Amino acid sequence: MANVGVLGAGSWGTALSVLLYENGHQVTVWSIDKAEVEMLTLKREHETKLPGVRLPEDLMITNDLEEAVTGRDFLVLAVPSPFTRATAKSMSPYIKEGQIIVDVAKGIEETTLMTLSQQIEEEIPQADVAVLSGPSHAEEVGRKLPTTCVIGAKTRKTAEYLQSMFISRVFRVYTSPDILGIELGGSLKNVIALAAGIADGLGYGDNTKAALITRGIAEIARLGVKMGGKIETFTGLTGIGDLIVTCASVHSRNRKAGYLIGQGRTMEEAMEEVKMVVEGVYSAKAAAKLARKYDVSMPIVDQVNAVLFAGKNPAEAVDQLMLRELKSEHSSLPWPDEV
Amino acid sequence: MANVGVLGAGSWGTALSVLLYENGHQVTVWSIDKAEVEMLTLKREHETKLPGVRLPEDLMITNDLEEAVTGRDFLVLAVPSPFTRATAKSMSPYIKEGQIIVDVAKGIEETTLMTLSQQIEEEIPQADVAVLSGPSHAEEVGRKLPTTCVIGAKTRKTAEYLQSMFISRVFRVYTSPDILGIELGGSLKNVIALAAGIADGLGYGDNTKAALITRGIAEIARLGVKMGGKIETFTGLTGIGDLIVTCASVHSRNRKAGYLIGQGRTMEEAMEEVKMVVEGVYSAKAAAKLARKYDVSMPIVDQVNAVLFAGKNPAEAVDQLMLRELKSEHSSLPWPDEV
Repeated sequence: MANVGVLGAGSWGTALSVLLYENGHQVTVWSIDKAEVEMLTLKREHETKLPGVRLPEDLMITNDLEEAVTGRDFLVLAVPSPFTRATAKSMSPYIKEGQIIVDVAKGIEETTLMTLSQQIEEEIPQADVAVLSGPSHAEEVGRKLPTTCVIGAKTRKTAEYLQSMFISRVFRVYTSPDILGIELGGSLKNVIALAAGIADGLGYGDNTKAALITRGIAEIARLGVKMGGKIETFTGLTGIGDLIVTCASVHSRNRKAGYLIGQGRTMEEAMEEVKMVVEGVYSAKAAAKLARKYDVSMPIVDQVNAVLFAGKNPAEAVDQLMLRELKSEHSSLPWPDEV
Repeated sequence: MANVGVLGAGSWGTALSVLLYENGHQVTVWSIDKAEVEMLTLKREHETKLPGVRLPEDLMITNDLEEAVTGRDFLVLAVPSPFTRATAKSMSPYIKEGQIIVDVAKGIEETTLMTLSQQIEEEIPQADVAVLSGPSHAEEVGRKLPTTCVIGAKTRKTAEYLQSMFISRVFRVYTSPDILGIELGGSLKNVIALAAGIADGLGYGDNTKAALITRGIAEIARLGVKMGGKIETFTGLTGIGDLIVTCASVHSRNRKAGYLIGQGRTMEEAMEEVKMVVEGVYSAKAAAKLARKYDVSMPIVDQVNAVLFAGKNPAEAVDQLMLRELKSEHSSLPWPDEV
């Protein structure tokens, strides 16, 4: 049994807290939001973000960051990406040497182009930072539907320790040394999900969406491999797997925001209507900057940015993606009669 | 303008006939079924398989195979996989040297383990056989929703000729020399779609399905590459793209048959209820034989066979797939601290 602190009580933080509790661990959840702490403490349920999932009585809930992080075997950092750096900075004074921290959010900082684990390491250099990612909607983990995830860590020892903490009959955990590939796949997929949502909102079908997903993972992998990620990661659970679930699911906020934009709303109206943080909107600009920095072609990222920030007509953007001049699918494959 | 014969008037044959007609070609559609020919001729619509899509008055419909295949610039073979060899055999006497035939169905013959293009070549050795595949539900092509496909051919010349015949504003066609990879992806995906449907029928969610799709394309690629297909094909439109559309869509018969089995029907009851040919049921046994022949591990294919043909409980089969002993996601990736 481990003693765990979970920072952030959104849908994913809450679902993972219950999972860890049911795995037999002692769990303390922290939220910066006093009203949220009070609601969770009294109602034992996150009524807006994870309705229907009961928080056990002895799952501790606190608004005190020092209390949440001190003396824990490992910490789970589950705050939305725009708040990760600030939260890490606030945690740092209470973090001991070698403290294991698992980040479970996804995103890339627009100004520095750093992933979340890189930001956490910068703010808490004494920590051993790992990540958890994969096709895992919180709502379904809360309902105990079979789910697979990957723990990325710098050492096999940390990875296997965390695997043993999270694994359950319905939550299967693999390990991987490719933290960077996992984080890039997890962040950039949200931009592709916005595109898939836009296509849905325009009334296009599954054929269009499958094309966008297939081309989407290709452009993510092109960039990710150039940055040092492993191609296997992009074809695995945290790459194509997570992209599929994000583009297909009714639970995805990024897809939903895109859907609303495809239906004619502005980016601001869509974000207002979805209510939760739409990570893809934050990652879109960062993705475009990375594409330029590493000189990689990312046509879907470019079109999403044009729609979000330059007022481009969504139908025109999707049509342009579908109608680009087409040649062979993989220009490197030779024709047998020309070899 | 080309003169085209389309063999087979199911949903895909009908949708492609209308597409080719609207591209300005002269099109003659053949069906072996006299009642179908009469219905199409009188109603100008395939009322059961592609309702809502109008067949233009001068799109010719015939029950005469010799008439359908003689003097055409290219032929489209769109009969279900169990009838491909027999249809090719019947066509052969009327086929001239170098006749281009594009097969658009998918499947592997259980007894010979041959793909459809290989069967056609065996029956019509004088033909130049190509394939068309990709994430393309007939219903959506019929509704002119943006769709992407790939033409696989033995020469660039044939591929680019067919690309120019099929391409339209809403139907984008790439070319590829990897006929084998395209056909293997297209056939084996139906087996994975049965598994995804079974998971849906059991009430599992998008997390489970995304895991099955991700692991599914991995096992298809393992086999396909060992057989001589190209890895790029399995990560492209005819591989993961087609797998996604088949597993996600309400239009997919394979997914629907799996869904019914997950809900408790037998394989026979499910096939009866879906009404159209469920290709995955035919391909499942062939896939298992190929896995043994090429000594490749295909756990999803194995479990689908156990459910279809050995009466295995579907919940037990999916649980077994999700709960296999898990280690690192890609065992070949090294841990930085162990290098």
